[in-house]
Amino acid sequence: MAKYLIVGGVAAGMSAAARLRRLDETAQITVFERGEYVSYANCGLPYYIGDEIKERERLVVQTPEALRELMDIEVRTSNEVLAIDPAAQSLKAKDLKTGREYEETYDKLLLAPGGSPVKPPIPGSDHPAIHTLWTIPDTDTIRAMVDGGKVKKALVVGAGFIGLEMAENLKYRDIDVTVVEMAKQAMNVVDFEMASMVHREVAMHGVDLQLEDGVSEFTPGANGGVVAKLSSGKTIEADLVLLSIGVKPNTAFLADSGIELGKRGHILVDDSLKTNQKDIFAAGDVIEVLHPLTRKQTAIPLAGPANKQGRIAADNMHGAKPRTYNGTMGTAIAKIFDLTIGMTGASEKLCLSHDIPFDSVIIHPNDYAGYYPGAMKMCLKLLYSPETRKVLGAQGTGYSGVDKRIDVIATAIKADMTVDDLTEIEHAYAPPYSSAKDPVNMAGFVAQNVLEGLIKTVKWTDIETNPAEYFLLDVRTPAECASGVMPGSVNIPQAELRNRLDEVPRDKKVVLYCRVGLIAYQAARVLAGKGFDNVYNLSGGYETWNVSVT
Amino acid sequence: MAKYLIVGGVAAGMSAAARLRRLDETAQITVFERGEYVSYANCGLPYYIGDEIKERERLVVQTPEALRELMDIEVRTSNEVLAIDPAAQSLKAKDLKTGREYEETYDKLLLAPGGSPVKPPIPGSDHPAIHTLWTIPDTDTIRAMVDGGKVKKALVVGAGFIGLEMAENLKYRDIDVTVVEMAKQAMNVVDFEMASMVHREVAMHGVDLQLEDGVSEFTPGANGGVVAKLSSGKTIEADLVLLSIGVKPNTAFLADSGIELGKRGHILVDDSLKTNQKDIFAAGDVIEVLHPLTRKQTAIPLAGPANKQGRIAADNMHGAKPRTYNGTMGTAIAKIFDLTIGMTGASEKLCLSHDIPFDSVIIHPNDYAGYYPGAMKMCLKLLYSPETRKVLGAQGTGYSGVDKRIDVIATAIKADMTVDDLTEIEHAYAPPYSSAKDPVNMAGFVAQNVLEGLIKTVKWTDIETNPAEYFLLDVRTPAECASGVMPGSVNIPQAELRNRLDEVPRDKKVVLYCRVGLIAYQAARVLAGKGFDNVYNLSGGYETWNVSVT
Ligand SMILES: Cc1cc2nc3c(=O)[nH]c(=O)nc-3n(C[C@H](O)[C@H](O)[C@H](O)COP(=O)(O)OP(=O)(O)OC[C@H]3O[C@@H](n4cnc5c(N)ncnc54)[C@H](O)[C@@H]3O)c2cc1C
Ligand SMILES: Cc1cc2nc3c(=O)[nH]c(=O)nc-3n(C[C@H](O)[C@H](O)[C@H](O)COP(=O)(O)OP(=O)(O)OC[C@H]3O[C@@H](n4cnc5c(N)ncnc54)[C@H](O)[C@@H]3O)c2cc1C
Ligand SMILES: CC(C)(COP(=O)(O)OP(=O)(O)OC[C@H]1O[C@@H](n2cnc3c(N)ncnc32)[C@H](O)[C@@H]1OP(=O)(O)O)[C@@H](O)C(=O)NCCC(=O)NCCS
Ligand SMILES: CC(C)(COP(=O)(O)OP(=O)(O)OC[C@H]1O[C@@H](n2cnc3c(N)ncnc32)[C@H](O)[C@@H]1OP(=O)(O)O)[C@@H](O)C(=O)NCCC(=O)NCCS
Repeated sequence: MAKYLIVGGVAAGMSAAARLRRLDETAQITVFERGEYVSYANCGLPYYIGDEIKERERLVVQTPEALRELMDIEVRTSNEVLAIDPAAQSLKAKDLKTGREYEETYDKLLLAPGGSPVKPPIPGSDHPAIHTLWTIPDTDTIRAMVDGGKVKKALVVGAGFIGLEMAENLKYRDIDVTVVEMAKQAMNVVDFEMASMVHREVAMHGVDLQLEDGVSEFTPGANGGVVAKLSSGKTIEADLVLLSIGVKPNTAFLADSGIELGKRGHILVDDSLKTNQKDIFAAGDVIEVLHPLTRKQTAIPLAGPANKQGRIAADNMHGAKPRTYNGTMGTAIAKIFDLTIGMTGASEKLCLSHDIPFDSVIIHPNDYAGYYPGAMKMCLKLLYSPETRKVLGAQGTGYSGVDKRIDVIATAIKADMTVDDLTEIEHAYAPPYSSAKDPVNMAGFVAQNVLEGLIKTVKWTDIETNPAEYFLLDVRTPAECASGVMPGSVNIPQAELRNRLDEVPRDKKVVLYCRVGLIAYQAARVLAGKGFDNVYNLSGGYETWNVSVT
Repeated sequence: MAKYLIVGGVAAGMSAAARLRRLDETAQITVFERGEYVSYANCGLPYYIGDEIKERERLVVQTPEALRELMDIEVRTSNEVLAIDPAAQSLKAKDLKTGREYEETYDKLLLAPGGSPVKPPIPGSDHPAIHTLWTIPDTDTIRAMVDGGKVKKALVVGAGFIGLEMAENLKYRDIDVTVVEMAKQAMNVVDFEMASMVHREVAMHGVDLQLEDGVSEFTPGANGGVVAKLSSGKTIEADLVLLSIGVKPNTAFLADSGIELGKRGHILVDDSLKTNQKDIFAAGDVIEVLHPLTRKQTAIPLAGPANKQGRIAADNMHGAKPRTYNGTMGTAIAKIFDLTIGMTGASEKLCLSHDIPFDSVIIHPNDYAGYYPGAMKMCLKLLYSPETRKVLGAQGTGYSGVDKRIDVIATAIKADMTVDDLTEIEHAYAPPYSSAKDPVNMAGFVAQNVLEGLIKTVKWTDIETNPAEYFLLDVRTPAECASGVMPGSVNIPQAELRNRLDEVPRDKKVVLYCRVGLIAYQAARVLAGKGFDNVYNLSGGYETWNVSVT
């Protein structure tokens, strides 16, 4: 009878335990979890605080009792693993309720202890109003504070996914929220112009987002609150502070185990999720993974990969049907108030930092047929290799349908598809779901046109850096221009362009723009046909420029 | 200066015209359209009749005037092409307003005349209350009848996509609707158990769907209405009848052209969308296409393929950058009241009729995290090859998120992915969008388990055909059983199974079922581990069986 021990009882650990049971009815499977809960929905915690999820029990997907009954799995909550001994094939655990320490041997061991939120060494951060959010007890504490009615103002430190989800949910509880972020944008994994839409969204909902600033000190404030002093000199008072500036792997207990760790303390595994020690596997937030696009090791703490790794680790621990884990490229998504922001694969920043040649296009297609009620524009940025034409990544923002396009492009990247392949994807079209040419097709078309020299593009940043270099030609209708124009631009509506060619300079770089880039592309083709060869389309059009500079 | 003529001014034709203009600013581009409108939204017509789309002008995406102004394209509406002469590189057209007939020469010609609704030779079908829906004038007529308030009862003949969309939209106008369909299911392109959910949905909304029946005769009825006599002997009175039983290609005008047509009258083209005649291309509903899964010719009249073909045809007519059209596999979707039904690739029926080896799984995952408010179950059927493990097709029904999974699987099929690849797709997960394991991953897992012998399955049809052969073991909780059970089944809840093994026969085929198949799979693994080797999971569980047999 095989004996499997698993450290950590949430996403990766419990997925592995459940799968092991299905692979081997006779095995002995024991899960060690230092917390009081297993199988809980970390990702749902912010929504419970925001009272979007109303019943606390919904957060707990399985209980130890049910896991025993249904899966014959022994779950030891409040049992922390203190050390492991690969040579002896054993671990040392402590029952946190009784204080008893004991050993347990294994045939195979899975390490799935996840990570914990980074607590920055800011003076004063041990104040009781300052919290992190990772577990159910964290959630209970924060929700109790909010339910108590004393939290009028909250400060969120860090504008990543969890920070902004919390900003949203605290707002839903009628709390004044300030978010402070060190970087010059929220959601640092996406590119600036995409994050700009998040900046606009949170502002529209009354969240005060302070970029390029950080907390240098906390001091006690009135009524049990704190005062945060920022690097900029500003001070912010808050009844509740949430620190959400990242996560670090829980590997302190492996210090003397001989298990190889990466530079930032993550467990290193091979593509079967095996560590360097015999019969010891690891999965979830705690491991380093291969990024399939950069081909470099990285750490991507997300629930999808953790769950999938758990299943693969189980298969490999069991051994009958080994599988490989082929890496994580960081497909991620968040709802920030009404806006969805999603991404997959490589961003511009990632390409730049890894010297990956790339180009990008930005489009603003409708989520579904424009004539069907409720259609709305989304913004989709596609990155691809100008050499191989392969899709490298995508980012999207919008009010519906973004998740679909991100998933389709994630699938395309996995399949090594080119932008040409994107144009051919045969999507499901009826007016409530898409257009005859889906946004994904459209992104492919636009990239194809750039690659094939039908159109040259400039980015909004090019204009910001070198305004004098360009003649800005606005080809929108006068009515469209009324909503705002780019400084220094000249307006010739597309319908008049063919008759007003002499107003377009031949000795300057002419940048055409319209609202999103579609009409400007048509205008650029008119000019190209008339022998203008210094003509560019502003990628993403006025929309992208406008949201990025304001 | 190149001279391009295009026959047909809607999806394929206008897409090609627009693309040609962008490829060649100096070309002469003329579009012949026998109707009064070009560039209109056929797919939106039912929703305008249902008053979901309120403004008629929304149906017309571009006007001839705007096309001239913006794209310098000459559009001749009310001009019908009567014949073409490939040898002379010319066509003969008729101005339907003046009656004048004239010729026009071309350098390259595109045939994009689409199709027209089939009008069955039913006696009495020339009655003025009987209509088809394809054009804006059709729509105006039908909407005027409905707006007039005299339509209390409507009969829709044919329960395909358009027929059911019309049933829905007529219902929205408070009309009693009966739908008569010859086949034993609605939406014949999907498999029966998937169509069953449509049957349930339309019944819930008060539409009377009569299957396996047809109209044998129409006779005039009271107040300008008709009486339809059905093959079954029933009669149905209606103030409005909509015939929607299919579409045939508009190729009568090509009779003496030498252009090669297929068996059902479609134009035959090569993979560059060229016909057998020099400089003549064709695109849209009028052509036969290669089905990439059956590798056979077929005709798939859908707007997505038509638009994409239009662009490719334009590229090949222009010639600078030729492209191939790689076929159409019939990805399609419809909203039927609140239900979405979508499909991609091969159905079970298609596999059977083409001798393609296949297996299938049916699952009922949540559209997004079960603990997030509003999550709902969808039904997803995945078809794959047991030999190559490649994905062959998918069908989905549900109230949200079906379109996303169909598009992802359509992308996977295009990329030749296997069910193993599906398990690895790195989708975007946050609670409002998906689960940590997406329905697409889940379908992959389940298929993997079947392929690897972890579980054997039976289909609901197997049980219906041979009830005596199986011992039906219901592993749901007693509370779940209260909502209905399969006749003759025995209940042992999964939590008790390990202690009640002696109640399970070893000499019979044991079919386990739960609500959707997940717990029954776990139960089957328990039994397998205890040496039962004649154990099966009911694919799709009680849900699929129940909706299919009732
Ligand atoms: C608020 C919040 C929102 C999130 N939202 C999303 C989202 O929308 N999408 C997404 O993809 N991801 C999201 N995540 C991340 C996701 O929850 C994690 O990636 C995932 O839970 C990682 O799974 P894991 O099994 O590796 O680790 P965890 O789920 O963290 O589980 C590890 C467990 O191991 C236990 N443990 C640690 N050390 C020991 C020890 N020595 N002995 C015994 N037990 C130990 C811990 O107590 C913990 O319960 C979110 C996370 C949080 C906190
Ligand atoms: C009510 C309805 C709903 C639909 N819903 C969907 C949907 O949800 N999703 C989807 O993918 N598809 C849908 N379709 C199908 C889709 O509209 C067609 O597949 C698409 O329009 C085909 O494009 P086409 O250019 O080939 O032909 P068409 O759009 O039919 O255009 C052909 C044009 O050519 C003209 N023509 C024909 N012969 C001549 C001639 N000899 N001379 C001059 N002109 C000529 C016709 O008048 C017509 O305007 C729907 C169709 C209808 C009618
Ligand atoms: C609850 C938990 C223990 C369940 O683990 P699990 O049983 O592996 O996962 P699921 O319930 O999703 O079941 C999936 C299994 O059922 C199978 N299955 C699903 N639907 C099926 C169906 N209709 N028919 C047959 N089998 C089906 C799948 O193939 C899979 O089995 P496999 O892994 O052996 O292939 C684990 O997911 C967990 O702890 N989750 C909560 C924690 C978490 O993930 N947090 C982070 C996100 S918020
Ligand atoms: C209206 C119609 C004439 C437009 O044709 P079109 O100009 O090719 O199509 P779109 O407006 O979608 O524009 C797509 C073009 O703009 C480009 N484009 C789109 N967004 C862009 C952006 N942000 N920046 C630059 N280029 C962009 C695309 O690359 C594509 O150009 P390409 O084909 O040269 O690559 C044609 O689609 C039509 O008649 N439609 C209505 C009929 C119909 O389709 N009915 C059936 C469905 S209901």
